[in-house]
Amino acid sequence: MRAIVKHHAGFGAQLQMVDIPQIGDNEVLIKVKATSICGTDVHIYSWDEWSQSRVKPPYVFGHEFSGVVEKIGKNVLNVEVGDHVSAETHIVCHRCPQCLKGQYHICKETKIIGVDTNGCFAEYVALPAENLWKNDKSMPFEAASIQEPMGNAVHTVLAGDVAGLTVAVIGCGPIGVMAVGVAKAAGAAQVIAIDLNEYRLDLAKELGATTVINPKDTDPVQAVLDLTDGNGVDVICEMSGHPIAINQGFKMVTNGGRVSILSLPVKPVELDITNDIVFKGVTVQGITGRKMYETWQQVSGLLKAGQMNTEAIITHTLPLEDFEKGFELMMKGQCGKVVLIP
Amino acid sequence: MRAIVKHHAGFGAQLQMVDIPQIGDNEVLIKVKATSICGTDVHIYSWDEWSQSRVKPPYVFGHEFSGVVEKIGKNVLNVEVGDHVSAETHIVCHRCPQCLKGQYHICKETKIIGVDTNGCFAEYVALPAENLWKNDKSMPFEAASIQEPMGNAVHTVLAGDVAGLTVAVIGCGPIGVMAVGVAKAAGAAQVIAIDLNEYRLDLAKELGATTVINPKDTDPVQAVLDLTDGNGVDVICEMSGHPIAINQGFKMVTNGGRVSILSLPVKPVELDITNDIVFKGVTVQGITGRKMYETWQQVSGLLKAGQMNTEAIITHTLPLEDFEKGFELMMKGQCGKVVLIP
Amino acid sequence: MRAIVKHHAGFGAQLQMVDIPQIGDNEVLIKVKATSICGTDVHIYSWDEWSQSRVKPPYVFGHEFSGVVEKIGKNVLNVEVGDHVSAETHIVCHRCPQCLKGQYHICKETKIIGVDTNGCFAEYVALPAENLWKNDKSMPFEAASIQEPMGNAVHTVLAGDVAGLTVAVIGCGPIGVMAVGVAKAAGAAQVIAIDLNEYRLDLAKELGATTVINPKDTDPVQAVLDLTDGNGVDVICEMSGHPIAINQGFKMVTNGGRVSILSLPVKPVELDITNDIVFKGVTVQGITGRKMYETWQQVSGLLKAGQMNTEAIITHTLPLEDFEKGFELMMKGQCGKVVLIP
Amino acid sequence: MRAIVKHHAGFGAQLQMVDIPQIGDNEVLIKVKATSICGTDVHIYSWDEWSQSRVKPPYVFGHEFSGVVEKIGKNVLNVEVGDHVSAETHIVCHRCPQCLKGQYHICKETKIIGVDTNGCFAEYVALPAENLWKNDKSMPFEAASIQEPMGNAVHTVLAGDVAGLTVAVIGCGPIGVMAVGVAKAAGAAQVIAIDLNEYRLDLAKELGATTVINPKDTDPVQAVLDLTDGNGVDVICEMSGHPIAINQGFKMVTNGGRVSILSLPVKPVELDITNDIVFKGVTVQGITGRKMYETWQQVSGLLKAGQMNTEAIITHTLPLEDFEKGFELMMKGQCGKVVLIP
Repeated sequence: MRAIVKHHAGFGAQLQMVDIPQIGDNEVLIKVKATSICGTDVHIYSWDEWSQSRVKPPYVFGHEFSGVVEKIGKNVLNVEVGDHVSAETHIVCHRCPQCLKGQYHICKETKIIGVDTNGCFAEYVALPAENLWKNDKSMPFEAASIQEPMGNAVHTVLAGDVAGLTVAVIGCGPIGVMAVGVAKAAGAAQVIAIDLNEYRLDLAKELGATTVINPKDTDPVQAVLDLTDGNGVDVICEMSGHPIAINQGFKMVTNGGRVSILSLPVKPVELDITNDIVFKGVTVQGITGRKMYETWQQVSGLLKAGQMNTEAIITHTLPLEDFEKGFELMMKGQCGKVVLIP
Repeated sequence: MRAIVKHHAGFGAQLQMVDIPQIGDNEVLIKVKATSICGTDVHIYSWDEWSQSRVKPPYVFGHEFSGVVEKIGKNVLNVEVGDHVSAETHIVCHRCPQCLKGQYHICKETKIIGVDTNGCFAEYVALPAENLWKNDKSMPFEAASIQEPMGNAVHTVLAGDVAGLTVAVIGCGPIGVMAVGVAKAAGAAQVIAIDLNEYRLDLAKELGATTVINPKDTDPVQAVLDLTDGNGVDVICEMSGHPIAINQGFKMVTNGGRVSILSLPVKPVELDITNDIVFKGVTVQGITGRKMYETWQQVSGLLKAGQMNTEAIITHTLPLEDFEKGFELMMKGQCGKVVLIP
Repeated sequence: MRAIVKHHAGFGAQLQMVDIPQIGDNEVLIKVKATSICGTDVHIYSWDEWSQSRVKPPYVFGHEFSGVVEKIGKNVLNVEVGDHVSAETHIVCHRCPQCLKGQYHICKETKIIGVDTNGCFAEYVALPAENLWKNDKSMPFEAASIQEPMGNAVHTVLAGDVAGLTVAVIGCGPIGVMAVGVAKAAGAAQVIAIDLNEYRLDLAKELGATTVINPKDTDPVQAVLDLTDGNGVDVICEMSGHPIAINQGFKMVTNGGRVSILSLPVKPVELDITNDIVFKGVTVQGITGRKMYETWQQVSGLLKAGQMNTEAIITHTLPLEDFEKGFELMMKGQCGKVVLIP
Repeated sequence: MRAIVKHHAGFGAQLQMVDIPQIGDNEVLIKVKATSICGTDVHIYSWDEWSQSRVKPPYVFGHEFSGVVEKIGKNVLNVEVGDHVSAETHIVCHRCPQCLKGQYHICKETKIIGVDTNGCFAEYVALPAENLWKNDKSMPFEAASIQEPMGNAVHTVLAGDVAGLTVAVIGCGPIGVMAVGVAKAAGAAQVIAIDLNEYRLDLAKELGATTVINPKDTDPVQAVLDLTDGNGVDVICEMSGHPIAINQGFKMVTNGGRVSILSLPVKPVELDITNDIVFKGVTVQGITGRKMYETWQQVSGLLKAGQMNTEAIITHTLPLEDFEKGFELMMKGQCGKVVLIP
C-alpha cells in the first residue's frame, strides 16, 4: 500500500510502498478514506528537538483520520466490517491510578498512534479495537477526519462553563480556530480571537469570533478590558504557547476566571502567581488529549447538530501524494485543517 | 398613576388610579416602560387555591418589567437616575444560612415582589435598590422586560452541561419555550420539545427545537428513545407540572442524566425511585428563582450575543389597559410572552 | 470444593461440593479467604419477588470477598499469582454511552457477580481479571472482604461535600452504619443516625454518630430541626427504602441540600416535589454500585488511614458451613457485617 | 482605650491610648477579648516593601479577633448587644461582577480591615455589621480568634476533594499547620507536611501529619513519590511562597491532581507549564481570603465537631502589652498562632 513514511532522522518524509499491516485478536484493519495533518505531524516532519528525542524512523506517521473497517480480530465486538470509524490517538494502560478512575487521557503509560506506533498516513491502518470511534455513515469522511483535533478544542472550551460568558482564544492555529467555533456554538456572549496571523484571524471570524485582535496592531490586554467594561474575560483558551501571550492571558482574565492551557510552551514560563493567580482567585487547567470518550460524544453531538462549520475549518483537501504541499501550508500558517485523501 | 389592582378576593383585577409610591433611603422609584405577565400573575388573577392562601388584596401585582430610574433613596449607590433597569423578584433576608453562603434564591425568608409587596403592573414601582439589574440602554424595553422569566429558563437549562448533549423540554409554556432557545444557544445536539398545545410547539420550533412531540399523537417516551438510539436524553427540563409527564421524563432520561424541575405540581407525585432514579444514577434538581445574580449575568450575556430570538418569544404587546385580553391569551395558552405597555 | 449453592427456587440454600471453576484467557481463579453476606444475598436466600424474577438456580451466590490469586488466564496483566484481591461486582459492557464516558457503574448491560453469574460463597471463585482490586497484603482478609459494601457507603456519602456539614443517615443496616463512619471520617460536623432498631443505633454510635434517633420514640424531623437551629441537615443519606422515612428525609434537609438515595423502595413513592424539592432547591441523587474504580481508591485510602473502625462493623465471623446462622442474624437485624470463612 | 498603633513608616509599633471608635448606622462596636497575629501583621510590623506601598500610618492594625458586641448602629439587624462575634476581614463593594455572583472574596474593590482601615489590636473595634460572624457563646475566645486564618486553611484544603486522598502541605507556618489539621479532619489518607523548620514540623505532627519531611535532610519530591507508590499526591496545598518549593509541588502532584496556592511569592516564578501542568492535566487554583460566608460555616462546623485541635495550634497567649514578644516569635517561626489578650 502507499504510505507516507518518516524515512530518516531528518527533515521531510517519503511516499513509499509498504505492506498492509497485520492485525491481532483485539485489533482492526481500517481502509483510510481521509487523514488530516496535525501540528505534531509537522514537528515530526520538520524533525524538531522533541521529535528527535521521541520518534524512531522509519515508520508511518499520522493519527487523524476516518475510514471504513476492512477486517476485525477474533475478539473484537465493538465494530463490524463496513463501519465508518475514526480513532482516539491515546493507547492507554488501564492499570495506573488515572486509568482506574477513568482519566484515561492522562494515563501515565500512554502510547500515541503515529508517534510511538505506525499511523494513518497510508491506505490502511491497524489499530486496537478499543480506540475506535464509530461515525455516522452520513458524515463526510473529511469532516470525520478532523474530530480528533476538534476534540482538543472541545476538551479545552468545555472544561468549564461557557454559555453567556466571555471567552478569549489566544493562538488561532487550526485547534484555536475550532475552539472559537466551539465557544460560539456553546453560547459564549463574546468570543475574542487573538493571533499575529491575519489569515488565521479571518478564519476565526468565519467560525464566529465576535472580535479579532492582532497584537501587532493593538494591545490585546487593553482591547479585551475595553470589550468587557474593564472586567476581563471569564475564560482564556491558551493555544499559542508563547510566554508573552500566556502572561497577557493572565492579565486579561477576570477575577475568578479560568485559564485552560492546551499549548505546549517549549521552555518554562515566568508567571506572576501572586497577582495573576492567587489574588484573582483564578483556576488554571492543563488540558491534554480528549476525555475518553466523553469528549468524542460531545464532538459528535456538536457535529450532528450542525453547530460547527467544518467546511470553513477544512481549507485544503489534497491527494495523499501531495503531502509535501500540505506540510508547507501548515508550516506557513496559511491554512485551517489540511486533509489528505489516500 | 394607573395600576392594575388585584382589588378583591376573587377572579379578575381592575385598572385603578393609585398614588405614586414613596421610596425609603435604600429604595428606588422606577418609571415602568414594559411589564410582562407571568404564570404566577395568572394564578392571582384567576384566584386559585394558592393565591387565596398567600395573597392579600387590594394591592398592585406584577413583577416582570423594565423601566427607567426616576428617583433614588439617599443611600443608593448602585444605580442613578436615568438608568435602564429590571429587577430580581426575590427580596431576601441576608441572614439565613442560605443567604450567608450566597444561595439567595433559596433564602428561607424570601418575599416576592408583586406577591407579598406592591408590584409593577403600573406606571411606577418602588423597589429595594439591591434588587435592581442595570440594562444596556440599547436593549428594547420589551426584551428587557422578559429577562426575569428567561432567568428561570437559563437557571434550569444551565444547571448542568448542555453543549453537545441531548435535551428534552417537557411543557412549552413561555418559560419552556425560552428553555428550548437557551438549550439551542448553549450548543445542545438535540432539543426535543414536548407539549399538548400545537401553538406552543410551533413557538418551540421557532426557538430552535430540533423535534417537537405532541403526546396526543405520539408516545413521547418511545419517540425520545427512537431519537437517541434507545439511550434516552441527557437532560430533562421539567416545566409541565403534570404527574404523567413527570414520570415520562424519568423514563426518557438516560442513565446518569439529569432531571431539572422548575414546575410546581399541585399535589405529591408518585415516582419509581428504584428504577427511575437509583438504578439509573439520575440526578434530580429542584430549580427555583434565579441565581442572584449569576443567572442575570448569563441572561444578559446570551441576549447581548443575540443568541435568543426575543421577537419570537414576545407574541403580544398590548397597552396596560388591555390587560384583560392579555390574561385571556395566557389562560388559553395562545401566546408566548405577553407584554403590557403602561 | 465446598460452596453455598442456591439450589432451588425457594427459601434457603445448601452447602454442596461443586467443581472448582475453570478460567478463560482473561479470567483469574481466586482462593476465597473471607466472604461477607450482603442484603442482596438475603433477598436471594429468602427468595423474594425480585429474586424470583432475576435469579436462576442452581448456582453459587455471594459477591463480597477477599482472597488470594491462585491462577491467571494467559492475557491477564493486572494481577499475579499470590496477589491479595477483592472484586468489583459489576461486570460491564464497555460499549454503551455510559461505559464510553467512564460511568461504568450505570452501564446499561451490567451483569452482577453472584446474581447473574457464579459467586464467591465458596472455596474458589473465577472472575474477569478487569474486575479485580488489589489489596495491600497487610490488610486482614475480613476487613478486605467488606470493601465492596463500604464502597456503596463511600459512593453515597462522598457524592458531594461533607466536611464541616451536617449529615443524617436514614436506615442503619450495615451500609448505613458504614455511611455513618465515612461521614465522620470525612469531617462532618454532625452525623445523625436514624433507625427503628436499637442494635443498629448502638453500632452507629460506635462508628461515630453524634446523635442517634429512634422514630419509635422521637419525631425524627423535629429532632433534626432542633439539632440544626431549625435549618435542617445539609446531607441526607437515604438507606431505609421506606416511604415514610424517605419523606421525612425530604422534610429534614435544608434548602439547597442534597438527598443521596442508595435504598431501593419496593414500590413507587409519593414525593411533594413542589415543596420538598423545587422550592427548597434540593438535589436528589440516585446512587448505585461504586464508581469504577474511583470509589475503590477512596475506600482503600480511608482504610489505609485507619479512618474506619472495621472491627466494630464486622460483628460476626463464622465458618462457611454456619451460613444459616449468618443469614438469620441478617434477617433479624442483629448484626453489622457477617463474614464467612471458607 | 489601649491599642497597638503602627505609629510610623518604619519597623515596629507602639502601645498607645487612643479614642474608642465611633460607629455609623450600619456598624457595630465590639469589645475585643482575644486577637491573634497574622503574617500580614508581621509584614506591617517589620515594614516590608508591600507595607510601604499599601499602609498609611498612624493607625491601629490587626484583623483576627473575637469579642463581645458592645453597641450597634440603628440599622443593624444581624447581631445584638452581648453576642460573641469574630469578623470577616474583607470589606467588599457588592457591585462588581464578582460580588454580583457571590464571589465576594475576589471583589475587585476589597478593603481589608487592619490594613486599609483601623483594626482590632485594641480594646475595642468598630466594624460594618455585615462583616460579623456570630460565635457560639461556649467557644473560648482564643479559639474563636483564630477562625479567620483557619478559614484560609479550610478554603485551600476544601477547594476540592480530600477524603481518602493524599495531600501534601508545603510550608507549615500557622496556616499550613491548620491545613494539615483540616486535611486530616476531612479524611485524607495521607497528610504529608513539608517545611525547613523543625518546630513547625513538630506542630504539624501534633495536628495529624502522617509524615513530615524536612527538605534540608530529604529530597521531598522523591520522598513523596516513595510514599505514594511512585504516583505522587492528589492534592498540593502550597503555603511556602518559595519558587523551589512551588516547583517541587508541581513535580510531586499526580496526573490530574490539584495544586491550591494560598502563598504569595514575592516575584514571578518560572513554571514548566508543558510537563508539569498540561501533560499532567493538573488544575491550579489561586486561593485568597475565605468564601463569604461558606468557609466560615465550614470552619464553624469543624470546630463544633471537635475536629481541630485548637489548643495545639495556639502555642502562645500573651497580654496585649507584650505584643513585641509575640511579633518576635512570629518572625523566628518558633510558634503556632500567637494570641494577645487586651
